[in-house]
Amino acid sequence: MLKSIDTKEKILFTASKLVQKQGYHATGLNQIIKESGCPKGSLYYYFPDGKEQLVEEAMFRATEGMRQEMDNLLSAHDNVIDAIDHLFEFYEEIDVKAESDGIPLALIAMETALISERIRIACRDAYTLFISMLADKFVASNWPRQAADEISSLIFAIIQGNGIAAMTQLSNEPFKLAHKQVMEIIRNKEKELDLDEPTGAN
Amino acid sequence: MLKSIDTKEKILFTASKLVQKQGYHATGLNQIIKESGCPKGSLYYYFPDGKEQLVEEAMFRATEGMRQEMDNLLSAHDNVIDAIDHLFEFYEEIDVKAESDGIPLALIAMETALISERIRIACRDAYTLFISMLADKFVASNWPRQAADEISSLIFAIIQGNGIAAMTQLSNEPFKLAHKQVMEIIRNKEKELDLDEPTGAN
Repeated sequence: MLKSIDTKEKILFTASKLVQKQGYHATGLNQIIKESGCPKGSLYYYFPDGKEQLVEEAMFRATEGMRQEMDNLLSAHDNVIDAIDHLFEFYEEIDVKAESDGIPLALIAMETALISERIRIACRDAYTLFISMLADKFVASNWPRQAADEISSLIFAIIQGNGIAAMTQLSNEPFKLAHKQVMEIIRNKEKELDLDEPTGAN
Repeated sequence: MLKSIDTKEKILFTASKLVQKQGYHATGLNQIIKESGCPKGSLYYYFPDGKEQLVEEAMFRATEGMRQEMDNLLSAHDNVIDAIDHLFEFYEEIDVKAESDGIPLALIAMETALISERIRIACRDAYTLFISMLADKFVASNWPRQAADEISSLIFAIIQGNGIAAMTQLSNEPFKLAHKQVMEIIRNKEKELDLDEPTGAN
């Protein structure tokens, strides 16, 4: 029993790593079989629908990992602004040239949106989850729900857009400017909402 | 002579269409040969470096097409804000389910950033061009150069990020919220820069 769990885990781990590095299309089942060292039969046994199912499950796993990281980051700060500062510091330091970093979710989302309903929904749900986690942190810092939802979706769009800029420039500079801009947007919105108290300082 | 130009054009046109629809990895040379109806020999004659060179040239062509569209849009409005209003109206109406629309530049950029220096640079230069065209429009509307550059790069990031959101949700809703948010960001920046006059009304 343990052995079979190990085999499934090994296939998922390899698929997850390769898709993250190369994207959906560039990752073939044969490469997953070869690099995981598992027989072809196991792959079809655990993932009878093939690559689409395997990548969908790998996405669930990657989303769970990102959810935990996001949760750690948000929990480490009382104040939503400190948490966002920290989030951008993380992006400013990411190694954009490392194949294992980068923004795999955006790549997989765009590759598959029109060709796999299962993977599209897995990507959409991952984004919805991360945006709602950030929005909840704004609400916990006294922001009204709608403003919290809207600014969280804006911040995620800015992160995604600058991720593309960082990759094409092979530089973290885009995140530095974005960091400054996001802080300014938050402060302006706080003024407008009359949240003059530092958020989270309740 | 005309015939050989036609063949090269036909190959480029087919490659451009397929890469835009499917991305870089999913588009094979054999498919390009088949759909263009051109012999394999012509493809290697005009593009001796193969797929990378072909996609790079297809990108140049796509960039020029987008440059013209952007130029038409910007020239149609004296005021930069009206032009941006118009730009977002365009995104709000795009058919996200149509395979020929969507945001191919972002997809190709992410697929190739780490594996093809030529295509990465073609993508980077395309983004730089579009951002600088928008920035020049801000400058023409009396914005200082640095503020114009910064807000243009922010607006492009917001468009890219919401493009991903629109694709995963198969909906234009993300662009509607982004439209409202971008207008608010511009107005706040105008106040800060003390550009109380409607921009472009000089």
